[in-house]
Amino acid sequence: MKVDEKRLRPIWLDNDFKTVKIIDQRLLPHEFIVIDLKNIDDIIMAIKEMYVRGAPLIGVTGAYGVYLAALNYFGNSSDDLINDSYITDACFKIKSARPTAVNLAWAVDRVLSRVLKAKDSSDKVDAAKKEASAIAEEESENCRKIGEYGLKLIDEISQRKKGATVNILTHCNAGWLACVEYGTATAPIYAAFEKNLDIHVWVDETRPLNQGARLTAWELGRRGVRHTVITDNAGGHLMQHKMVDMVIVGTDRTTYTGDVANKIGTYLKALAAMDNNIPFYVALPSSTFDWNLKDGVKEIPIEERNPDEVRYVRGLSQNEIKNVLITPENSPAANFAFDVTPARLVTGFITERGICKAAENDIKQLFYDKV
Amino acid sequence: MKVDEKRLRPIWLDNDFKTVKIIDQRLLPHEFIVIDLKNIDDIIMAIKEMYVRGAPLIGVTGAYGVYLAALNYFGNSSDDLINDSYITDACFKIKSARPTAVNLAWAVDRVLSRVLKAKDSSDKVDAAKKEASAIAEEESENCRKIGEYGLKLIDEISQRKKGATVNILTHCNAGWLACVEYGTATAPIYAAFEKNLDIHVWVDETRPLNQGARLTAWELGRRGVRHTVITDNAGGHLMQHKMVDMVIVGTDRTTYTGDVANKIGTYLKALAAMDNNIPFYVALPSSTFDWNLKDGVKEIPIEERNPDEVRYVRGLSQNEIKNVLITPENSPAANFAFDVTPARLVTGFITERGICKAAENDIKQLFYDKV
Repeated sequence: MKVDEKRLRPIWLDNDFKTVKIIDQRLLPHEFIVIDLKNIDDIIMAIKEMYVRGAPLIGVTGAYGVYLAALNYFGNSSDDLINDSYITDACFKIKSARPTAVNLAWAVDRVLSRVLKAKDSSDKVDAAKKEASAIAEEESENCRKIGEYGLKLIDEISQRKKGATVNILTHCNAGWLACVEYGTATAPIYAAFEKNLDIHVWVDETRPLNQGARLTAWELGRRGVRHTVITDNAGGHLMQHKMVDMVIVGTDRTTYTGDVANKIGTYLKALAAMDNNIPFYVALPSSTFDWNLKDGVKEIPIEERNPDEVRYVRGLSQNEIKNVLITPENSPAANFAFDVTPARLVTGFITERGICKAAENDIKQLFYDKV
Repeated sequence: MKVDEKRLRPIWLDNDFKTVKIIDQRLLPHEFIVIDLKNIDDIIMAIKEMYVRGAPLIGVTGAYGVYLAALNYFGNSSDDLINDSYITDACFKIKSARPTAVNLAWAVDRVLSRVLKAKDSSDKVDAAKKEASAIAEEESENCRKIGEYGLKLIDEISQRKKGATVNILTHCNAGWLACVEYGTATAPIYAAFEKNLDIHVWVDETRPLNQGARLTAWELGRRGVRHTVITDNAGGHLMQHKMVDMVIVGTDRTTYTGDVANKIGTYLKALAAMDNNIPFYVALPSSTFDWNLKDGVKEIPIEERNPDEVRYVRGLSQNEIKNVLITPENSPAANFAFDVTPARLVTGFITERGICKAAENDIKQLFYDKV
């Protein structure tokens, strides 16, 4: 994505082919810092501590993690000593870093299977590098296509409103920072912006970690897209007063029946959209479908994170990043990171293959070769 | 309310009868500071800047504001010079301090009518003092009764669950800090606690000003009531997973048809409660009914506050209260302070006269003499 006329991705392999570079997303928008990851411990830390986040980006990071593991192990072993158990263990550890997003396991397993198939050490390292890079490029291309398909939806609303502003609400960050390029939920927004449609984005701040207020607002601002930050509480009121034309969100795992796990609070926005007849779309690459799960509310594992993420808020005070305590010292907090929006509340999915209903048959028809 | 074994109210008239004392609620839970209000400018500032907040407390503060205005004007004028336009103007200004809560206008007008009826200066001052104090005492007694009636609802759930923990979710602060004693939404909770029922409260943090995380958590903690702070995003997930047995909230203005204006985000919780068959109760004294409004979404004025309340979060860092910026420097924000929950989503009202459905006929039956 172009930021201040420079092309930028949230992750890339350095020219030395030994270092994975990432933007430290914990510090945005206040500080822009690039971090070097050199081994799987670095990778796992970056995923767990949310230096990187967003389902597609976690997948790509995991994929590069398998590459680093392969490089560090096979690159330093002679062929008669190697065995695959090291890399299999490493993959298991990476996949355990975060439980909800299915892209992580999908991407790691995809790279692993190439490594296992390759014969000697240098082939294994090469195979891992190629596959990880291929995943990054494919996810980028998937997001571009999501943008193309989603653009049509925005364009329709724009035409119906005779060119008046199309107001889109989004929750959390499903932007290029969460992916590789374009984003999922933001891809149609950027595509509409490129096409000079009059759009405005309501950005849910998305407590506890404020990915909306910090990351989506930063992305949109840097690209010049008109937007307004709101509290997570505000969307219902805006919808009641016809100040929202459509909702687009991303997802961390979607069942083949159309249930959508996404950042906590998504379900509440879906309820409000349904109550006010506002279209509620979920944008996702096929890597986010879980072809094994039927009932999202019952079956998708919901990560519980450190309660201090709720008790403290990070922000800028006199040019310094500070964590401020917002609760009484002794009040406990709970921190469920995701919720599940049942398919019945979803108007449709915007995927790299087109738009479909959030229903088993429609999903399977579009992805008949993946099921 | 007892806090650390001391009786405490959020507002009281000082022994000199010239000063209204309030707790500065902007600084809780990190600092406990009592502020002196001596004239209507002080009163208006305290209401506007939310040193005091909560519909019943705003009403009582406004009532004491009329008393201070009467004291400062009539107390210093000789009878042949006075006229009532000063006090009428003062009341208009106080009522304009915040638009959504109807209690403010109700309480101010109630004191004003006594002042206008009184004959000479000292009678007017006396009448204002008596009426303002009467309102404070009545609101306290109303909350006590709300607690009694609401207790029955909690007790029923407790019995149905055979004594297992009753989980109650609340939004914002409708506690004693928002009232005079007991609170509205918290009155049944405190009553259940006194009766040794096993209860646990999910406290929505309530962005932007975090009245839940700051005030409700502090109140409950000081009283020893078990509670957990959650983000405003979390309630839907908890309800889907049967971790909430009932919701109780307060209200700032309720139409005679049962539509409920309350802190922004309440509507989203009501939708989730409906979607999961969880009872959603609103606790209110009759001073919060607006007997003139029929359609809450269309007719209740929704206050828009300073967007910086969204862009910044106040909290404690190294024992100092700091405001930290959470958005990019240049991202705009919007700050609607309330939303309206339609009557169809409300299970019932807990009032000082008993419990009724959120429906015109039921409300009018209970309050036949007020309509």
